[in-house]
This record gives sequence, C-alpha cells and structure tokens, in this order.
Amino acid sequence: MSQQQRDALEELIRKAPLDIGGDVIEQRANFEKMLSARPLADDVSTTPGDLGGVPVLNIETGEASHDAVVLWFHGGWYVIGSPRTSAGLSSDLARRVDAKVISVDYRLAPEHPYPAAQQDASAAYRGLLDSGVDPRSIAIVGESAGGGLAVALLASLAEDGLAQPACAVLLSPWTDLTLSGETMTSMVGIDPVFTREKVSVRAADYVGSADPADPSISPIFADLHGLPPILIQAGSHEILLDDSIRLARRSAIDDVDTTLDVTPGVPHGFQAFAAILDEGDAALARAAAFLDHHLSWAEATT
Amino acid sequence: MSQQQRDALEELIRKAPLDIGGDVIEQRANFEKMLSARPLADDVSTTPGDLGGVPVLNIETGEASHDAVVLWFHGGWYVIGSPRTSAGLSSDLARRVDAKVISVDYRLAPEHPYPAAQQDASAAYRGLLDSGVDPRSIAIVGESAGGGLAVALLASLAEDGLAQPACAVLLSPWTDLTLSGETMTSMVGIDPVFTREKVSVRAADYVGSADPADPSISPIFADLHGLPPILIQAGSHEILLDDSIRLARRSAIDDVDTTLDVTPGVPHGFQAFAAILDEGDAALARAAAFLDHHLSWAEATT
Repeated sequence: MSQQQRDALEELIRKAPLDIGGDVIEQRANFEKMLSARPLADDVSTTPGDLGGVPVLNIETGEASHDAVVLWFHGGWYVIGSPRTSAGLSSDLARRVDAKVISVDYRLAPEHPYPAAQQDASAAYRGLLDSGVDPRSIAIVGESAGGGLAVALLASLAEDGLAQPACAVLLSPWTDLTLSGETMTSMVGIDPVFTREKVSVRAADYVGSADPADPSISPIFADLHGLPPILIQAGSHEILLDDSIRLARRSAIDDVDTTLDVTPGVPHGFQAFAAILDEGDAALARAAAFLDHHLSWAEATT
Repeated sequence: MSQQQRDALEELIRKAPLDIGGDVIEQRANFEKMLSARPLADDVSTTPGDLGGVPVLNIETGEASHDAVVLWFHGGWYVIGSPRTSAGLSSDLARRVDAKVISVDYRLAPEHPYPAAQQDASAAYRGLLDSGVDPRSIAIVGESAGGGLAVALLASLAEDGLAQPACAVLLSPWTDLTLSGETMTSMVGIDPVFTREKVSVRAADYVGSADPADPSISPIFADLHGLPPILIQAGSHEILLDDSIRLARRSAIDDVDTTLDVTPGVPHGFQAFAAILDEGDAALARAAAFLDHHLSWAEATT
C-alpha cells in the first residue's frame, strides 16, 4: 500500500468541485459531471427498471453465472447521487462476486425528506421478494447515506417479521443524523473534505420535520436484533468513522454477526478508487469474499 | 451454527468450578484441573524454554514447514492460567497456520503486580528479535488479559522505536482495568460467569499501587499509532465486549489497520471450544486466514 497513492487520492478529492454544504442543484450537477468523467468498464451494461414501483438501475457485468442479487443503495448524503453516479463502484463489486446489482433510485431530499427514501428502500426490497428471488441469495450494499438507509431497512424488516437478506455490506454508513459522533469534529482537517457544518445542512434536508434521533433515521439508536451478518468498512480519515464504530457496537450488542473493517489513512468513499488505490482494491476484495461466503444461490439457467 | 451447541457450551461454562473472584491459589488449581481434563492432540509437542530470561513453552504441531513464530500471551485475568492451560487453543491455531507457538509464562499477580507481566512480555519479544527471527515472520496473539498485555507491548514497541511484528490477533482482550465499559454491567447475566465485581478483585491484584488508567495497564488509553494490523475477536455475550469495541475505536482512530470481528451469542473464550462449537471453529479459521495473510516467512530448512 503506497503513501503516494493515498496522497494522490487525497489531492484529487480536495480539488474536486464538490461542496457538500452548498446549493443542492449545483452540487448534483457537479457530482454527475465528476463521475461521468470516469466511464464504466466495457463489460458493464445498465438497464433502467422498476422494483415495487421504485425506479432502479439494473447493472450487469458479463454473463451472470448464478441468480444472486446485490440490492444497492448509493451514497450522496440523501440529497445527491444516483445509481448512475455509483455504477463504477457497484459494477466493480458486482464483477468480483459475479452477481447482478439492482441499484435503487430512491427519492432525494430536500424535495423528498424522510421517510421518502425509507419508503422506497422498503418497497424495492419487498418488490424483489415478490418477484420470487430467494432472500438467501440477496445481499444488501449501502454506501454512506445509503448505508444508513440499508441498516434502517434491515431493522424495519426485523420489526415487521419479513425475511432478511443473506447479509449486508455497509461502506462508511451514515448512521447518526444527530451528528453526535466525536469524529464529526475531531477528524476535521484529517477528513479531506467533509465537516460537521457542511453535512449538518444535508442532515436537516433529510430529517425535515422529523426527529434526527428517530431510529429509522439514525439506526445506531435502533434495535438491531435479527439482522443478518454485516460487514462495515470505513477509512480512518473520515468524520463518519464513529458512525461506523457505533453501528458495529450497536449490532454486536444486539447479537448480530458483526465485522468492522477500518483501513488506515484513507478518506470516505475510498473503495470507489480501487483502480488507483491498492487499499480500495483490497477492501473490495474483502467485501467480495464476505458476500461470497454468505450468499447462497442457484446456478443461472440461460 | 447451532443454538444447541451454544446452549451446551454455556451450561458447561456455568457449571465449571471456577470462581474468578475467589481465592487465587484455589482458582489456579481449579483452572489447571479443568484444562488438564482436556488432553492435547496427539500431534502437539511442548518443550519448556527461555526467551530473554523469561520462561516460555514452545508448542509445535507436527513438522513446521516455515519459520514463522506466534508469540502467545495466555489469558487468566493476570492471576491464573499458564502456557499449559492455553496450549489446547494455542496449538489449535498453530496447526491452522502451520507455525510454531512460543507461549510466554509471564509472572502473575497478586504476587507480581504490574509492571512484572509487562516487563516479561517485553523481554520475551526482545529476546525473540535478538535470536535473529525476522519481525515480519512474528505474529502476536493474546487472549483476555494476555490480549491487553499484547496491546500494551505493541504500544511500548512503537514508543521505543523497535520493530513491530507482522500483525496481532487479540481474543477478547481485557483493555480497560478501570472497568468503565458499559457492557461491564449491562452484560451481567448474559455473560454466563463473569461480573464486574468478580473481575474488579483481579484488576486490583494486577494494578497494585499503580493507576488503572495508566495506558500500559489499560491500552484503550494508549497512543496506538504505529501498530501493525490487528484483528480483534469477541463474543457478544461477554462483559468485555466494550473492551474490544473501544480498542478497535482507539486503534482505528490512531491509523491502525483494524478488524473487529464479533460472533453473536457466544461467551468469553469461545474459541477454546472450537471442537464442540462451530462458531469457535469458524472464528479460528478467520484468525488463521488473517495470520496467513500478514505473516511472511522463509521455508524451513530441515
């Protein structure tokens, strides 16, 4: 693992034209532009679809050899991002586990505050079950805000007595919209771009008139009994580090098979840079091994 | 993984004639008797030795095919246990990584309070380096009190600028002798045998006239920068759960490659019961994979 790679990535991130505390419309355009500058690999095909009435993007790499499905919730602090902006990362992981990704285009704040995203996540998962997919062949992956959304979804499934997926992978999940983690302030400056002040604007957008400590908004306060095995990955250089650590604590105490996997010296979202960062590649390899271990599937009949 | 196995193990542990808060001499005898009732596997050979002036037990399984060494620190709340009482577990892990174990017979409290054990741990590691073993082929493993001892050793190596080993595996480490973890009280009754009250007797034995918050005694308060990759394993049914979680937090924040791996529904020391508990077997397999990944070694020349 090279310090040079980490420095180059940090420089790239610091210079990116994204100001997460800024005007939403402008930031969405910037984010789209940044990510569309990195074309998808040649073997990736994307097809818009619908799951339980929610728009999704089906992402496939080559010919899937089995019927496992990764249900994906993208990041973007609940206000920006889309299945397309995270398709580079989701297709990378899809290729590593040879599975199809269905990436949920949940509604964004501030136009659609809580519980819109949560309703969409739930409808998409129920739609997937209704389509006849065996829950043991479903894995859930969420990045950042999508990670918090995924945990809240899993907790709601447990509460409603619905079948859980085989496992979940949470990449630097945003799990506390009260922003009470100590690293929210102690990591400022070490985290190359995010600050408590900036993300508090987005928390307010999503929370709307609800309580930020509502367990459906901040799942570190939720009852997590009954969740499937979870892998939480984070970088040590992010203000969200305590969101990952406290989620791991909550899930461990609630008798969930829990793995917390922290890569030192890397920022939020480092896995998306696997092509230029060995640590990102290694982390995705571990995520893929975790998914392979927990997913069961039938061979595809083509 | 079977609920039946977990119930049987819990019953076994509850009925064991060990009262960790009781008279030390009596508990040492009980512990020896309990563990000697489980003979070592036929392929295990143990040879007493000396490392840096500290007595050790060399534990080998079959013919080691390479020169990697696992330096082992047994558990027992700093007052009971020995390389022999933990040889079942240490030889099991040794066999899985095909490495030799050198288990340190550090001095015990209350006869030898802090810093005796710490001095012995340090002398043994330095003795191993002096014997010419490449630090990249050394892994450190510590269980319970031995886990806390191991982390304190690694922090002292960093402070003294000495070569770190390749990695460390910490099995339910006791990292906070101020006993401030919330699970110290919230897990009472869920943890089948240990209570804050009982282990506070042992903490007092080890701390002696020192400060329990001294980072060399309670390494969750230490500066952990410079430590090698660490894997922390714990069970969710133990009062020490927060000791593992807070160690993971400290090491992650201090830029250490950190994995926290919590197995639900199992008690302190569950890995020692790998033969009768699938979860123990699976956890040791993950620990072995971690050691294999991080250790480098030369093929043995026999």
